[in-house]
Amino acid sequence: MKTFRSNCPINCSLELIGDKWTLLIMRDILLHNKRTFKEFASSDEGIATNILSNRLARLEEHSIITKGKLPDNKKVNIYAPTSLGLDLIPVVLELALWCGLNKTHFNPDIPDENIAGAKSYQQDRAAIIEQVRRQFSD
Amino acid sequence: MKTFRSNCPINCSLELIGDKWTLLIMRDILLHNKRTFKEFASSDEGIATNILSNRLARLEEHSIITKGKLPDNKKVNIYAPTSLGLDLIPVVLELALWCGLNKTHFNPDIPDENIAGAKSYQQDRAAIIEQVRRQFSD
Repeated sequence: MKTFRSNCPINCSLELIGDKWTLLIMRDILLHNKRTFKEFASSDEGIATNILSNRLARLEEHSIITKGKLPDNKKVNIYAPTSLGLDLIPVVLELALWCGLNKTHFNPDIPDENIAGAKSYQQDRAAIIEQVRRQFSD
Repeated sequence: MKTFRSNCPINCSLELIGDKWTLLIMRDILLHNKRTFKEFASSDEGIATNILSNRLARLEEHSIITKGKLPDNKKVNIYAPTSLGLDLIPVVLELALWCGLNKTHFNPDIPDENIAGAKSYQQDRAAIIEQVRRQFSD
């Protein structure tokens, strides 16, 4: 088991997912229905393939995602969130809301449609978390 | 103004605050009533002073915190959250909740009292955000 810098749960989360890339992969999985290395690599941010491999391995190591195969295609790895991964839905939505609320200040180029989801989330956090989560229940 | 890797608000937030240290400083400011370099440097995680200086400067550069002086002591810098900084309250609380909900898996050493706040937050997100925010209204 990993050794942490302190017994603060915020620090624990940051040690596991605190970087510029990990939560973009979780965004792709949780909100954009992406499942494969190729799909993650094609996102607008242009993640380098070595960083992507590293972050996927870390997410799998900590049981935040699982790696599997499709029944009819054994060549392609399919990544899916575990319950630990689904618990990241509100973290990802809060990050969208923080920049979304302040886009005039940070990045006015962000189109309004890109923050519509975050604004719905702000209106009723519990309902939107549940709505996103339901997409992963079988 | 900073150039971003994409027009995704989640990416925007990660480019501004996505690392292992920035949100620990915001935790100290928003939840632990810390205000000075010395107080931040004394937190359990043992942030290196060069990293702390760098992150404080970046937070100030992006108007997430302000740097000021006490009327009766011009030698010590006092840091305070701006409205952009206060908007990070739910981000920090969600990070506490994510690890808190899953501490058995990630870090069983975290005492229950360290996640009590996160659990209250989960019961009524809006109320706790408002309660923390009120501590900064004059």
